[in-house]
Amino acid sequence: MAQSIDLNCDMGESYGAWHMGNDEAVLQHVTSANIACGFHGGDPGTMRKTVAAALARGVALGAHPSLPDLSGFGRRVMQITPAEAYDMVVYQIGALAGVAASQGARLHHVKAHGALYNMAAKDAPLAQAICRAVRDVDASLVLYGLAGSELVRAAQDLGLPVASEVFADRTYQDDGSLSPRSRPGAMIEDLETAVAQVVRMASEGKVRSVNGKDVPVQADTLCIHGDQPNALVFANGIRAALEQAGIAVRAMPGGPVA
Amino acid sequence: MAQSIDLNCDMGESYGAWHMGNDEAVLQHVTSANIACGFHGGDPGTMRKTVAAALARGVALGAHPSLPDLSGFGRRVMQITPAEAYDMVVYQIGALAGVAASQGARLHHVKAHGALYNMAAKDAPLAQAICRAVRDVDASLVLYGLAGSELVRAAQDLGLPVASEVFADRTYQDDGSLSPRSRPGAMIEDLETAVAQVVRMASEGKVRSVNGKDVPVQADTLCIHGDQPNALVFANGIRAALEQAGIAVRAMPGGPVA
Amino acid sequence: MAQSIDLNCDMGESYGAWHMGNDEAVLQHVTSANIACGFHGGDPGTMRKTVAAALARGVALGAHPSLPDLSGFGRRVMQITPAEAYDMVVYQIGALAGVAASQGARLHHVKAHGALYNMAAKDAPLAQAICRAVRDVDASLVLYGLAGSELVRAAQDLGLPVASEVFADRTYQDDGSLSPRSRPGAMIEDLETAVAQVVRMASEGKVRSVNGKDVPVQADTLCIHGDQPNALVFANGIRAALEQAGIAVRAMPGGPVA
Amino acid sequence: MAQSIDLNCDMGESYGAWHMGNDEAVLQHVTSANIACGFHGGDPGTMRKTVAAALARGVALGAHPSLPDLSGFGRRVMQITPAEAYDMVVYQIGALAGVAASQGARLHHVKAHGALYNMAAKDAPLAQAICRAVRDVDASLVLYGLAGSELVRAAQDLGLPVASEVFADRTYQDDGSLSPRSRPGAMIEDLETAVAQVVRMASEGKVRSVNGKDVPVQADTLCIHGDQPNALVFANGIRAALEQAGIAVRAMPGGPVA
Repeated sequence: MAQSIDLNCDMGESYGAWHMGNDEAVLQHVTSANIACGFHGGDPGTMRKTVAAALARGVALGAHPSLPDLSGFGRRVMQITPAEAYDMVVYQIGALAGVAASQGARLHHVKAHGALYNMAAKDAPLAQAICRAVRDVDASLVLYGLAGSELVRAAQDLGLPVASEVFADRTYQDDGSLSPRSRPGAMIEDLETAVAQVVRMASEGKVRSVNGKDVPVQADTLCIHGDQPNALVFANGIRAALEQAGIAVRAMPGGPVA
Repeated sequence: MAQSIDLNCDMGESYGAWHMGNDEAVLQHVTSANIACGFHGGDPGTMRKTVAAALARGVALGAHPSLPDLSGFGRRVMQITPAEAYDMVVYQIGALAGVAASQGARLHHVKAHGALYNMAAKDAPLAQAICRAVRDVDASLVLYGLAGSELVRAAQDLGLPVASEVFADRTYQDDGSLSPRSRPGAMIEDLETAVAQVVRMASEGKVRSVNGKDVPVQADTLCIHGDQPNALVFANGIRAALEQAGIAVRAMPGGPVA
Repeated sequence: MAQSIDLNCDMGESYGAWHMGNDEAVLQHVTSANIACGFHGGDPGTMRKTVAAALARGVALGAHPSLPDLSGFGRRVMQITPAEAYDMVVYQIGALAGVAASQGARLHHVKAHGALYNMAAKDAPLAQAICRAVRDVDASLVLYGLAGSELVRAAQDLGLPVASEVFADRTYQDDGSLSPRSRPGAMIEDLETAVAQVVRMASEGKVRSVNGKDVPVQADTLCIHGDQPNALVFANGIRAALEQAGIAVRAMPGGPVA
Repeated sequence: MAQSIDLNCDMGESYGAWHMGNDEAVLQHVTSANIACGFHGGDPGTMRKTVAAALARGVALGAHPSLPDLSGFGRRVMQITPAEAYDMVVYQIGALAGVAASQGARLHHVKAHGALYNMAAKDAPLAQAICRAVRDVDASLVLYGLAGSELVRAAQDLGLPVASEVFADRTYQDDGSLSPRSRPGAMIEDLETAVAQVVRMASEGKVRSVNGKDVPVQADTLCIHGDQPNALVFANGIRAALEQAGIAVRAMPGGPVA
C-alpha cells in the first residue's frame, strides 16, 4: 500500500479592496488549493492571481464553490433545493476552469465551502446534486468531502474520483464523525497531538476516538487552515512529521480525462 | 462567394424571480444566442435553461459578458482597466462554458453586453483585453463585434475568428459607423426599409448612408432585439426576406479547436 | 367595538431593469403598502416611485425588510443570528424611512418579507430581535405579524403597536394556525368562501377551522397578493364585501410618535 | 473670527468577514466620521459598530454614500444619471440614519465616497442631485465637499450647511484646485510641510500653490486618511500642531433642524 496524503487549504478568499489570508506562504506547505469562485469571496482578479500562484508552486487547482452569500462569507446555512445547488456548483466550477484555461491549466478537484460543505455532508439529495454537477462539468475532477459523509458516498455512487478529508485539529467520535465544536475537547490545540493523529490516520487508517476507541478512517486529504495565527507553524510541523514517517505528501491523481 | 448571414439575439437575461424577454419564441428565428452570464442578468438556473433551449433549437451558444452592474443591467459606462475587463470576461466565459459542458456542449462565440460592447467598440486597449481573454480561454471562439470597431480590429490582430455585426434598425453614416441614437433619423422603424438594408448588406456588402452615399460594410451577423413588442415580426420578416434573396441564415463556423 | 380591518399588499418588488407586480392597480384596493427595501427586490429608484404612488393614493407606507438574498427573492431560509436580523431590519427600515422623508412622509408599519416572516413567526429570539429593531428605529411603527405568531407576541411584549395578519385564501387549523400549504385543502380558491371567511374574522373574531371548529382569531390586517392573475378581482371582491358588512377598511393607527 | 477646523476620516469600510482600516485608533484623533453605507463597504453590522464607536468618542456621524460598486470599492467612475445619484444618496443616508436612530443619535453630515465625490466635484448636475437628496432627507445635514468644487457650490445654492474640505498631503494649483496625482509634486509626504500647510489654511485661509503663489482656500474640514501605515502619526501631528496654533479642532455645527 503506497502511503500518501494530500494537504489542502482554502485560498483566494480576498475580495476587491479587501484582503484575506496568507496565500503565498500557505502555498509553500500544501499540495491542493481550494480557490474561492466569487460567491463567498474571490473576485475574478483574485482568482487569476491565486491560480497563477498555485501553478507557480505546482499546487493542484480546485474549485471551492459556495452558497451565494458574500456578506456572510458562505458560512450561513441557506435552504436551497438540490437543483439550485447543482446550478451554483456548475457555474462556479466553470468560472474557475475558465481562469485556469486562460493560464493553460486544468482544474484537479472540487471542495464545497463552508455551509454548503457542512450541509451536503449530511443531506444526501444535496450531496448527490453537487456530485452530479461536478461529474457533468468534468468527470475527471476529484470530489473532496468529509470522510464518511454523504458527499463521499454520493461521489462514490457516481463513480467520481473522491478524496476523504480528515482534520488534524479536531477530535473524532466512536462512529468516525467529528466531535461537534460545541462540545469540550472538540478541538486539538497541541501541535504534537495533532501531528500524531494525522500520521496515524495516514499510515494506519485509524484514529483514536474521544472515548479511547480505535476507529477506521479514510485519510486522503488533510484540511489545513490558512487564516489562523499559528497556521503556518501547524502546516509546517505536520508536513515535516508526515515526511519523516515516510508518508508522501502529494495531491491524489484525478480520474480519467474525458 | 457563399452568401450567408447569422442572426444573433441576447437572451437568458431573467434573474431569480424576475422574468425578461421572450427567449423561446426568439429562438425559433435566430441562429446565435448571446447568453447572459450573471453580471447584468442570468442567474445559474436561467443559464442552464437558456443553454438547454438553444441546444434544442440548434442555435449556437455564445457568452454575453457584462460589466458587474446588476442594478443597472450592464448599461452604465464604468471606468474599468483593461486588466479588470480581461478578468471579468474570462470569468463569465468560463461560467457559461461550464454550463454548456454540463449539457455536453461547447460555446461558439462571445459578444460583450451593453456598455462593455459600446466602450470596447471605441477603446482599443479595452478591446484588446477582451479579445485576449477570449483567446486565452478558447481560441476557437468567434468574437462578435460592431462592424468596423476596435473590437473587430483587435480580434483580427489576435487571429481570432470574428463576426462583424450590423443592425437592421439603425442608419449608417458616411464612415460606416452607426448614426448616434440622439440624432433624428438614427432609427429605422419601417420593416420594409430595414429588410432592404439587411439584404443589401448581406448580398452586396454595402449600405446606403444617411447622406445617400454607398458605404462598404462587413455583415457577418445581424443583431435581433428580443425584448420589443414587434421584435418577432421583425425577426420573422427579415429572415424570410434573406432566404428569399438566396442568403443562407446560419451561424458562422468557429475557428480551429485548440 | 369599532369594526375595521386593514388590507395590506407587498409592492415595489421590481429591481433595476426587471419589472414585477401590478402596483398601480393594487394601490386602488389596499390601505397598507409593504415596500421592498433592496434586499430581495426594490432598488432605490423603485422605492422612490413606490412611495410616491402610495402617498398619492393615501396608502400607509410600510417597510418590507428581507433576508439578503436577491437571487432567491428572500424566499430561502437562511440561518442568521438574532443580531444579524436586528442589523438587517434597522438598515432596511432606515433606507425606506429616508425615501419617505425625502417626500415629506413617515413610515407607518413594518412587515418582514418571505422567509424572514415565516422564520420569525416560529422563532422567538428572531422575532424579538426584529421587534427590537423596529422599536429602536421608531417606536411608533406598527409591527405586522402572523396572527398568533411569535412576532406578534414579541411586539406585544415590547409595547409596540401590532397588527395581527390573517389570510383570505388559506384555511386555519384548530389551534388558529394556518394549514400547511403541503396539505390538501390548505388553499381557498373560491372567492365567495374567502370573502365569507374574512368578513367573519373581521366582524366576529372567529374562523371556522378545517375540522369545522370555531377558533378565535385576531384580524387586524388582511394580506392581499398582488402578483397573481386574479389578484385584483379578489381584492376588489373582498373590499366590497367588507364595506357592505359595515366593516371599515383602513390602516390601523400607529403608536405615539417618540 | 473664531478659528476652528474639523478633522474627518472615512471609516466603517469593513464588509462581512473582511476587515479594513483602523477605526478605533483613528477615532481618537478625528472629529467627524464618514461611515460607509453598504454600497462600497459597510454591512449593517459594521455600520452599527462604527456608529457606536463614534458615539463613544463624541465624533460626529456622517453618511458616506457611494456608487453601487462593492467589487470596485466605489472607486470606479460610473456614468449614472443625476436621478440615479439622487436615489442612491437618499437610500444610503436613510440607512445610516436608521442605524443612528436605533442608538438614539442623529446624523451630522454627508460626504460622498470615492468616484462619486470626484465626479460630483466637477459635474454640476450630479452635484445638485446629491445636494437635493441631502436636503430632502434632512436639511440640517452638513454637506462635505472639495473646497471650490461644484458640490460646495450646489450646497450653497440650496442653502445647505456646507464644509469645504482641504487636504494636508496634497499640493494646490494657482486656481485653488488640487494638483493632479499624476503630476510630480502632487503629494506632500513630509509631515512638517503638511502640518504647516494645514495650519496656514485654517488660520489665514490661504495656501501656497505649486508655483509659489498665495491662493485663498476655505478650510472647514481636513481629510485624514486612516488606512495608510503612518496615518495615525500624521493625524496626531496635525492635531497637535493645530491646537498649538490656537485653532480649535471640532466638527462644525449643523444647520437648523427641520
